[in-house]
Amino acid sequence: MAERETVFRECLCVITGASRGLGKELALQLAPSLTGASSLVLVARSGERLEEVRRAVLASQPSLRVLLVPADLSTGQGVGAALAALPQHRPRRLLLLNNAGSLGDVSKFVVDFTSPAEITDYFSLNVTSFMCLSAGVLRAFPQKAGLTRTVVNISSLCAIKPFKSWSLYCMGKAAREMMCHVLAAEQPDLRVLSYAPGPLDTDMFLQARTETGDPEVREAAKSLYAEGNVLTPQDSARKLVDILVRDQFESGAHVDFYDK
Amino acid sequence: MAERETVFRECLCVITGASRGLGKELALQLAPSLTGASSLVLVARSGERLEEVRRAVLASQPSLRVLLVPADLSTGQGVGAALAALPQHRPRRLLLLNNAGSLGDVSKFVVDFTSPAEITDYFSLNVTSFMCLSAGVLRAFPQKAGLTRTVVNISSLCAIKPFKSWSLYCMGKAAREMMCHVLAAEQPDLRVLSYAPGPLDTDMFLQARTETGDPEVREAAKSLYAEGNVLTPQDSARKLVDILVRDQFESGAHVDFYDK
Repeated sequence: MAERETVFRECLCVITGASRGLGKELALQLAPSLTGASSLVLVARSGERLEEVRRAVLASQPSLRVLLVPADLSTGQGVGAALAALPQHRPRRLLLLNNAGSLGDVSKFVVDFTSPAEITDYFSLNVTSFMCLSAGVLRAFPQKAGLTRTVVNISSLCAIKPFKSWSLYCMGKAAREMMCHVLAAEQPDLRVLSYAPGPLDTDMFLQARTETGDPEVREAAKSLYAEGNVLTPQDSARKLVDILVRDQFESGAHVDFYDK
Repeated sequence: MAERETVFRECLCVITGASRGLGKELALQLAPSLTGASSLVLVARSGERLEEVRRAVLASQPSLRVLLVPADLSTGQGVGAALAALPQHRPRRLLLLNNAGSLGDVSKFVVDFTSPAEITDYFSLNVTSFMCLSAGVLRAFPQKAGLTRTVVNISSLCAIKPFKSWSLYCMGKAAREMMCHVLAAEQPDLRVLSYAPGPLDTDMFLQARTETGDPEVREAAKSLYAEGNVLTPQDSARKLVDILVRDQFESGAHVDFYDK
């Protein structure tokens, strides 16, 4: 823990999709390490659920400044609200965890996507908000001596491998991953990580194993679950926090939970 | 030519971005091979330029049915207009060449993209219309015996390699490429190709070498041009037509002009 306390001291940590699943777990696991005038900004649609996460966070770290942003990141207003909520004090560590996201309508195949609005809505939440929020946070806290900045993209195996009937999810994750590669090349001082958290026992994976249109992919997801081969958000959050503490990844890299 | 005449006989060929550059050249080079009740549907914003392409096409293949769709594919109406213009006769060959696209504002780095509208507009033209048009065309001409269907994504090296200050272009191309992988997996009867045409001497490459924000990438583009290492649209179109005639690519594959 001593190591973590050093790494995350005077840290501004922003987590999106923080009301449940992996995002909530990341908030809970990082909280004890956020010491010395750190702030934790939690973004999600449900203010009620965010309040619950705040209570749980403060139970382990009562002195932590926790800011809640009930906002829908699929809108420009939502991204604006998150940016407006950023505290003004200068941190020594900036950590942006872009976790918010959706699976899309996995009952559909590529040939079923005839509505531009559905695709646009998907990209607004999963790609546009990711890009605008990252850009806004990095502009608010530009490179300076003594400041370490890390942007994490919660990615997926789907960013690099196609899955039948998950076209929007795969496309969105591929676009995010590519943005991370470009960002890492553009800003060498920055630490950029695409983390694939593995199949998690969350609402999203419930959707995946019940609604997936392709029978083969749906059965594979069901089997993973039935055989106990899905991960808990706790396990995957722990792995990501360890990766961030060690800080040895190549900037821009795709790192999977299952990587050594 | 005998080979081409067999391959593209009774063909419905749809080309987007057909008024100039690679799209225009593909129309001109395919026209002589589009025999026996074939149709060529050309989509682009400028009706005037499309008329010029039609005249040039008919000069080499006077009996070809050439339909023009002056439409802006960044809008749902534009995609709808293209789909509404599809002829009703049943072809033996369906060829959709998704060539329309834009480079985006390459004066900007990732941290400069703070406007959701700009990103949404980019994805509307470059990803959403690509997906909706492909879906719509494939639904209009579903799998059936005796029909060979090919969807071509005009891709780029940028789909697989990041370039500084070309984030939108790289992200859009990565998303399109991923859609092609998913589509190829979903529809095994389909032929899906992502073709990277190489650096072409077009308006887009002029923009690349004059407006690119990153000095290193801008100078690399300038040098390519100054040293004569850009390709003509004619050369690259010829390569793509040859690949389509040989028809030996793995469905879903990324094939570059420079590949053997």
